[in-house]
Amino acid sequence: MNRGAVVLLSGGLDSATVLAIACSMGMEITALSFAYGQNHSVELLMAKRTAASAGVSEHLVIQLDPGAFRGSSLTGGGTVNKAGNRRGIPSTYVPARNTIFLSIALGIAESRGAGNIFIGVNSVDYSGYPDCRREFILAFQKLANLATREAVQGNPAVIHAPLMDMTKAEIISKGLELGVDYGSTISCYDPDPRGNSCGLCDSCRLRLAAFRALGIKDPISYVR
Amino acid sequence: MNRGAVVLLSGGLDSATVLAIACSMGMEITALSFAYGQNHSVELLMAKRTAASAGVSEHLVIQLDPGAFRGSSLTGGGTVNKAGNRRGIPSTYVPARNTIFLSIALGIAESRGAGNIFIGVNSVDYSGYPDCRREFILAFQKLANLATREAVQGNPAVIHAPLMDMTKAEIISKGLELGVDYGSTISCYDPDPRGNSCGLCDSCRLRLAAFRALGIKDPISYVR
Repeated sequence: MNRGAVVLLSGGLDSATVLAIACSMGMEITALSFAYGQNHSVELLMAKRTAASAGVSEHLVIQLDPGAFRGSSLTGGGTVNKAGNRRGIPSTYVPARNTIFLSIALGIAESRGAGNIFIGVNSVDYSGYPDCRREFILAFQKLANLATREAVQGNPAVIHAPLMDMTKAEIISKGLELGVDYGSTISCYDPDPRGNSCGLCDSCRLRLAAFRALGIKDPISYVR
Repeated sequence: MNRGAVVLLSGGLDSATVLAIACSMGMEITALSFAYGQNHSVELLMAKRTAASAGVSEHLVIQLDPGAFRGSSLTGGGTVNKAGNRRGIPSTYVPARNTIFLSIALGIAESRGAGNIFIGVNSVDYSGYPDCRREFILAFQKLANLATREAVQGNPAVIHAPLMDMTKAEIISKGLELGVDYGSTISCYDPDPRGNSCGLCDSCRLRLAAFRALGIKDPISYVR
């Protein structure tokens, strides 16, 4: 079995958990983060801390031209919803983001001979994002089965989405079991300049509710 | 019908022809090129000329981190084959390149409200590349049908690959009919510093043979 893996690492809670899961499976890991002009670039700092504490052999931060990512409140267009009345596809949706991230992961995996790609998508809490759904991941797997030299030679990269069916509380619970330091993660869409989370955006609300459900204090700092 | 289109434009003969086809269909075009550390960056100059002469409303050149593109003779790894004995997947294969290009095109199309993506892949002459095959394009279409907000709302981007079943001679013939200036294109994998084509790599050989078959002189300069 090929033990090479590219793990998408955003600096958030989910991908830190996925990284721990991949480590626990004995994978040799290239962690992969993207700088794409996101407002909340403190997440890259958190990704670095998480990658370092997991002891990955390589952590790549790929610069992505912000010109490719217009049209989202995460990259400067529009406002982040803080009313707690989430429905439909949120303004934080970034056009084709997971498609782009997985595609680049696919190229990097092939160039390193890694047969696995891990992504922390989750359909339970974030069903508003089209590219976090199971059918999207399955379609990407089918594409990956055709797209590369390795695939043509009978070794397509396997896309792993281990959090797909877990609730946020189950994810945190799993991560704590594996020793994840959630103090080195951030979920907020709109942190203040010192990296404190707003506590009001959809992502903060989901995170806080999950820690509360577990009866555990979230170790990160909030503005309120 | 949505007339917005993102056209992948490499500076080569095929994509210049695709651009002319998209223009002839009355599309409103964003031409999209990538700077990804390719050795033959003269192609970006050609892409600019072709976009300008086609009168597109926008030409984006997206910088892609060369770190994402190791492992190809086009990006500095290994040598370009000039023996004319092409078989299997050539060293010029770039891991997951068309997957990455189409993914970014998908995001840009969505951010601009464009419902069409054009790509100049062709399975007749270049069957060595896994990501130039019809089944790859169909799999990407299926992914696009799930990946974006527009898709979820019933308007998935349509992937057009109008050259898929054409020979190189047929492509050139179509382009000449549409007024393409092939003097502003380059196909060579290893041009000299002044942009003269080598005449010996697989891509030059295919191009030259096609012009010869049509009884037309290729308007670009060759080293030999």
